Amino acid sequence: MAKLVGKALVAQGGGPTAVINQSLVGVVLEARKFPEISKIYGAKHGVSGIVNEEFYDLTQATTHNLEQVALTPASALGSTRDKPDIEYCKKMFKVMLAHEIRYFFYIGGNDSSDTCRIVNDQAISQGYELRCIHIPKTIDNDLVGTDHCPGFGSAAKYVAQAFSGINQDNRALSGVYIGVVMGRHAGFLTAASVFARKFEDDGPHLIYLPEKAFDQKKFIKDVQTNYEKYGRCIIAVSEGIQDKDGTPIMTSLAAGEVEKDAHGNVQLSGSGALGDLLAELIKAKTKIKRVRADTLGYMQRSFLGCISETDKNEAREVGERAVQFSVWHNVDGSIAIKRVGDYAVQYELIKLEDVAGKTKHMPDEFIDGDNNVTTAYKNYARPLIGELPVTDRIASPSVHKIIGG
Amino acid sequence: MAKLVGKALVAQGGGPTAVINQSLVGVVLEARKFPEISKIYGAKHGVSGIVNEEFYDLTQATTHNLEQVALTPASALGSTRDKPDIEYCKKMFKVMLAHEIRYFFYIGGNDSSDTCRIVNDQAISQGYELRCIHIPKTIDNDLVGTDHCPGFGSAAKYVAQAFSGINQDNRALSGVYIGVVMGRHAGFLTAASVFARKFEDDGPHLIYLPEKAFDQKKFIKDVQTNYEKYGRCIIAVSEGIQDKDGTPIMTSLAAGEVEKDAHGNVQLSGSGALGDLLAELIKAKTKIKRVRADTLGYMQRSFLGCISETDKNEAREVGERAVQFSVWHNVDGSIAIKRVGDYAVQYELIKLEDVAGKTKHMPDEFIDGDNNVTTAYKNYARPLIGELPVTDRIASPSVHKIIGG
Repeated sequence: MAKLVGKALVAQGGGPTAVINQSLVGVVLEARKFPEISKIYGAKHGVSGIVNEEFYDLTQATTHNLEQVALTPASALGSTRDKPDIEYCKKMFKVMLAHEIRYFFYIGGNDSSDTCRIVNDQAISQGYELRCIHIPKTIDNDLVGTDHCPGFGSAAKYVAQAFSGINQDNRALSGVYIGVVMGRHAGFLTAASVFARKFEDDGPHLIYLPEKAFDQKKFIKDVQTNYEKYGRCIIAVSEGIQDKDGTPIMTSLAAGEVEKDAHGNVQLSGSGALGDLLAELIKAKTKIKRVRADTLGYMQRSFLGCISETDKNEAREVGERAVQFSVWHNVDGSIAIKRVGDYAVQYELIKLEDVAGKTKHMPDEFIDGDNNVTTAYKNYARPLIGELPVTDRIASPSVHKIIGG
Repeated sequence: MAKLVGKALVAQGGGPTAVINQSLVGVVLEARKFPEISKIYGAKHGVSGIVNEEFYDLTQATTHNLEQVALTPASALGSTRDKPDIEYCKKMFKVMLAHEIRYFFYIGGNDSSDTCRIVNDQAISQGYELRCIHIPKTIDNDLVGTDHCPGFGSAAKYVAQAFSGINQDNRALSGVYIGVVMGRHAGFLTAASVFARKFEDDGPHLIYLPEKAFDQKKFIKDVQTNYEKYGRCIIAVSEGIQDKDGTPIMTSLAAGEVEKDAHGNVQLSGSGALGDLLAELIKAKTKIKRVRADTLGYMQRSFLGCISETDKNEAREVGERAVQFSVWHNVDGSIAIKRVGDYAVQYELIKLEDVAGKTKHMPDEFIDGDNNVTTAYKNYARPLIGELPVTDRIASPSVHKIIGG
């Protein structure tokens, strides 16, 4: 089969990550090496830039500029929450055809892989030769078929460093602290708070994941037990925690209306509500006075200056591999990371339909009871996050009392 | 006058900072060089550890352990919110006398300098020779008599990096974003969000400080103007914003009761309430749909891994200088940083009564109108924060449209 010759189009969809531009730059720089790719365009704001025919000509970006962009958090091309249906994909397809796009790379989560799948099906049914490659990214780490997702490691590093600092802060000024972490359906990111623990009594003392039913009474009891034991209690809680019937705790605790998006999802990020409601619950049900809540917020996915080296390198390489697979092997699919050592990875191309619209949850072996994670999780996540900055406690004896008893 | 010989006692008070342990370690390591100081004790949890006679014998800490502790955020000795009155200070004094403490170093904000002052007065009135040195720290940067406060630079760096990431995130997925920053009375920290701006249209587009009366109507108008101009609007707002009568906006927006501390201060940190209330206000008064709020929270003062080099070095040196002043010059006072070049500093000792209980606000020359800061502020704060990680935008032309108009 003759090599497909034409333009390439790259786009970024969904929530940004700290390394999503590494993948973008990986695509662009790798694409420049192939004579089969005449030009490389970047769609502004994901699929919406395709239907609106708004492209950057990335052929004209300098390598220096691209390398600076690679270090910058959050989708440099712009992103979108549009979730294309078949009609939308047809519009995209029309524009791509007009610009003689032959290679389409979409960096995103499972919605983006679904978009790739639909565009690919359209192309096949219309006899238009187009390579469609989905490049994974998500801080939630919830894509199936891949060992882990680019973007997760850096977000997890942020969460670990945040809770590590919180752990010191809460030791200095004790009380109950609730930190709300992103992750609507999967608890991988919340679980990363475990890396803040160094000493036996370090926090987080309780870790709540969306995978385990959240019971308010049990929660209060566990907070009290830990507070009595350590004189303090740090809680890492996923924004997506649900009760045993699958109702988001955010909904059951909120007195009034909660904001929902077009898909009927309750607004979880961009508000401190869940943390505040849990803090109020603790204050109401216990005698603990100092109860504080932070919602870690958008810093988790876009804080400047907190990058996992492994994540950064892999995010670059999935972009490069996407181009190589499409040009050399003339195939469509989704790039997956396969763990082949401790720690080593290989990249493979899996079928779009095997990723599209599916969500991976924390496997049981990563979850310890209803408020902790296992060593298996730590072994899984540690190489993705890398080494954390040093922390230590004062190691010297107490002075014998002269006055006091 | 003969040199005072005896034990030294060091303690940490108030809210932690990311570099407060640099000052602690500066005191300990410097104190070890002086034969006048026989032992160095560390009080657990600030002044409360003194009245309870709970001390570490830091003489026995290894240098390695201390250097690791220096890199760790948040008061390693533990902190306290206790604000001693004269009776409390007398109790402290009794314990210090029993342990033959001759040098007292208290690392803290203006409450801590006031404690030093009272302890010092007590010592004088009882004819007990004791050197009392206050070592400044506060992320709020609101101590008088010093050019700036150790702890501020690192917190400001965190705020700048947070808003820089948010700026990219908000460009990728547009809307209104509110970031609530610590600072009850002084806006220095909120102002540091200005360093997120690189290009003309970068956010934060609006910066609200406690020093300027906050007008809700004007606020809504300004948000709308910026949203229309840029298609997005990022707002940095101090937790301490007040209306023209000095009422905290937190109080005027909240429907129900707000939590107050022993001093009658409204609880501002450890809750997402102010951000959420402002977001609701914008949603109610405009047609803007995507409005998100984050409260930057305790990460501002204790995030692991975001340290200003200047801040780190100065925090160490104020600790070292405190010991030198007290031993060589046999005087009491508060360490102040004097800016003597661009950028260079010297350290001096100022009177405790000149710092104690006083609050510095942003000077007028740092404030630009009711929602911006000046270049004078940027010149003041930039060397304290240091260089930020690189960010960049894609610099390539748009592709000419074939289909669209």
